Amino acid sequence: MTSTALRRPGAPAVHAPITAPHILRRCRRLAAPALTEAIGRLHPWIAEMAGYALGRCEVGGAPADHSQGKGVRQALAVLGAEAVEGPAEAGVPGAVAVELVHTFSLLHDDIMDGDALRRGRLAVWKAYGTGPAVLAGDALFALAVETVALTPQAGGAVRQLTTALGDLVRGQADDLLFADRPWTGPEAVSAGEYETMAERKTGALLGCALALGARLAGAPDGTVAALDRAGRHLGVAFQIADDVLGIWGDPSVTGKPVHGDLRQGKKTLPVLAALAAPRSSELTGLLASAPSLDDTGVGRAAVLVERAGGRTAAVREARRHLVAADTLLAGLPLAPGPAVELRTVLAALADRTI
Amino acid sequence: MTSTALRRPGAPAVHAPITAPHILRRCRRLAAPALTEAIGRLHPWIAEMAGYALGRCEVGGAPADHSQGKGVRQALAVLGAEAVEGPAEAGVPGAVAVELVHTFSLLHDDIMDGDALRRGRLAVWKAYGTGPAVLAGDALFALAVETVALTPQAGGAVRQLTTALGDLVRGQADDLLFADRPWTGPEAVSAGEYETMAERKTGALLGCALALGARLAGAPDGTVAALDRAGRHLGVAFQIADDVLGIWGDPSVTGKPVHGDLRQGKKTLPVLAALAAPRSSELTGLLASAPSLDDTGVGRAAVLVERAGGRTAAVREARRHLVAADTLLAGLPLAPGPAVELRTVLAALADRTI
Repeated sequence: MTSTALRRPGAPAVHAPITAPHILRRCRRLAAPALTEAIGRLHPWIAEMAGYALGRCEVGGAPADHSQGKGVRQALAVLGAEAVEGPAEAGVPGAVAVELVHTFSLLHDDIMDGDALRRGRLAVWKAYGTGPAVLAGDALFALAVETVALTPQAGGAVRQLTTALGDLVRGQADDLLFADRPWTGPEAVSAGEYETMAERKTGALLGCALALGARLAGAPDGTVAALDRAGRHLGVAFQIADDVLGIWGDPSVTGKPVHGDLRQGKKTLPVLAALAAPRSSELTGLLASAPSLDDTGVGRAAVLVERAGGRTAAVREARRHLVAADTLLAGLPLAPGPAVELRTVLAALADRTI
Repeated sequence: MTSTALRRPGAPAVHAPITAPHILRRCRRLAAPALTEAIGRLHPWIAEMAGYALGRCEVGGAPADHSQGKGVRQALAVLGAEAVEGPAEAGVPGAVAVELVHTFSLLHDDIMDGDALRRGRLAVWKAYGTGPAVLAGDALFALAVETVALTPQAGGAVRQLTTALGDLVRGQADDLLFADRPWTGPEAVSAGEYETMAERKTGALLGCALALGARLAGAPDGTVAALDRAGRHLGVAFQIADDVLGIWGDPSVTGKPVHGDLRQGKKTLPVLAALAAPRSSELTGLLASAPSLDDTGVGRAAVLVERAGGRTAAVREARRHLVAADTLLAGLPLAPGPAVELRTVLAALADRTI
C-alpha cells in the first residue's frame, strides 16, 4: 500500500502525496518548540532525564542527537487537527501532551518490564536509577495534563486524556498479570483478552492523539469519537506488529535483544495463535521453561511459532484492525489532503512488518 | 492552642467548637463513598493495591481496618468548600482527588526513598513489588485528575491540581538531590532551600486541597489563591513537624524506625539548624558517617542536634509558618463556623509535635 493507492479518485490533491517519513518529520518539527518549552518548565534534573529519554542529551546533559522515535503520536494529533479543517497549530498542545505521556509510559514500563535497553541505549532507570526514573515519569505525566489543561477546551480535552491514561494503566496491568498465566488450559490468555490489553496499552493513546487533535481544532463529538476508535484499531495493529518485531525483528533496527519476547516468555499474539493451532506440544514444552530458555531454545521456539502459523495469523489480525481504522476514517467528512496524509502514516506504520 | 481559643469573640457559633479528630472524621465520612466509588473504577488488581495502601484490605484483598491516616488533605478540601459558604458536598471531588494524589505520592516516594514500612505495615512496593507499585501510583494519579476533570469547573480545577502536582515532583526532586549534598561548606543545603523543598513537597498539596475545595464551591480567585498560600504555610509547618517526629518520634506512633531520618542521613531542618549553630563539629563528624551509623551513633547525633538548639529552632520555624497560615485565614471573609473548624484542624496538626 502506498499513499497514492490510498488517495481516492476525484479527491482534490490539496496536499501532494508525500511519504510517511516526510509527514512525520513535518509534524515533529511543528510540535518541537512547544515540546522544548514544556520540558524547560521542569526541574532541571528531571528535564535532563526527559531530554535523555527523548534522545536529546547524554547522561550529564551533554547535547546529543539520538533517534527520538518516529513521533507517531504527535503526528496523529497534528493530523487530527488538520483533518477536521483546523490549523495544524491547534493540534500542537495535544501533540506535546501525547508525546509526554508516551515518554512517561516508556520510562515506567521499562522499570516494570525490567527492560534495560530502549532504542539501543540504557533505559532511564538503568542510566539514572529506579527512583529518579519513577519521579521523571511522574513529572512528564503531570506536565502532559497541565499542557492540555492550559488549552481553551481544557475540560473535554483533559477528560479525553485521562480516559486514555486510565486505559493505558489497565492495559499495562493486564499485560503484567498475563506473565503469571499458563500457556495452555482454561486459565490461558485468549486472543480476545490479548486484543483488549493491546487496545488499552497501545490503542488508547493513539486514539487519544487523533481525537485530541481534532477536539482542540473544534471538531464535533461524533467525529472525535470515531477518530478515537480508529486510533484504537491502529493501536492493536501496531502492538501486534511490535510483537512480530519482538520475535523476528532485527536487533540493530529494534534496539532490543533478538527473540527478546520469547526469552522473557511474553504472551504475544503470534505465540498465542500458534498455541491455538494443532500439534503445538513441542512449543508448549519449550515455552514452559522460559524465561530460562537458552539461545537455541528461543530460536527453536521462533521456528515453531512460525511453522504453526502464528506469525501469519498475527499479521492477518493486524491487517483486519488496519482495515477497520481505514473504514472509520473513510466514513468521516475529513479534509481530503490531511486525510490522505493520515492514511499514508497508517499504511506506513503497518508496512514496517506486515 | 485549642479550638475555643481560636474562635474570635463575637463570631456566631454556627458550628459548636469541636475537636480536630471529630472534624477529620466527619470529613472522611463525607468523602468516603466517592473515594470508594472512584477506586472501584480501577482495574481490580490496582484497586486491591489502592485498598491496601488505604488500610482497607490485606495483600490478597481480605478486608481490613488499619489506620488510614488522618485524612488531613480530604478534610481541608471539604472545609475549603464550607469556609466559602458552599455545601460540603461541593468539596468532595476535590477531597477525593487530593487523597488519591497523596496516596500516589506515598507509593512512589516509598520506592524512591527505599522506605520498607508505611504506617507500621509493609510499603506497597515491598508487599506487591516495585513494578506493580509504580503502576498503582500511576493509576491513582490518573484517577485523581479524572475526578477533578469530571466536575463542572474542570478547567480551573485541573490547573489547580496540576500546579500542585508539578510542585510535588519538584519538591521530591529537590529532596532526593539533597542526599548528595554535603552537610557543611558552600554546597551545603541552606534553611531557605529546605523550606522551598518543603513548601513544594508537602505544602503544595495541602494548599491545593483548601483551594480546590473553595474553587469547586465557587469562591472568587483571590480567596482561592489566599487559601492556597495558607495551605502551603501549613505544609511547611507540617513537614518540619514530620522531621521532628522523624528524629524524636515514638516508633509505635509513627510506624517508622527510631531516629530513622538520622540513620539515613536526611537533610532535615532540625539538623540543618543545629549545624548552623556554633560548636557543631562532633555532629558534623557523626553525620559524615551516615547512613552507616550504628544505634549509639544516631542516639548521640539526636542528643547533639537537640543540644545545639536544632529542635527548638525547627519548632520556632514551624510556629512562624502556622501563624502565617492563620493570618491569611483571618484576612478572608470566611463563614465563621467552618473557619473555626479549619483553624482547629491547623492547630491540632501543629500540636502533634510542637
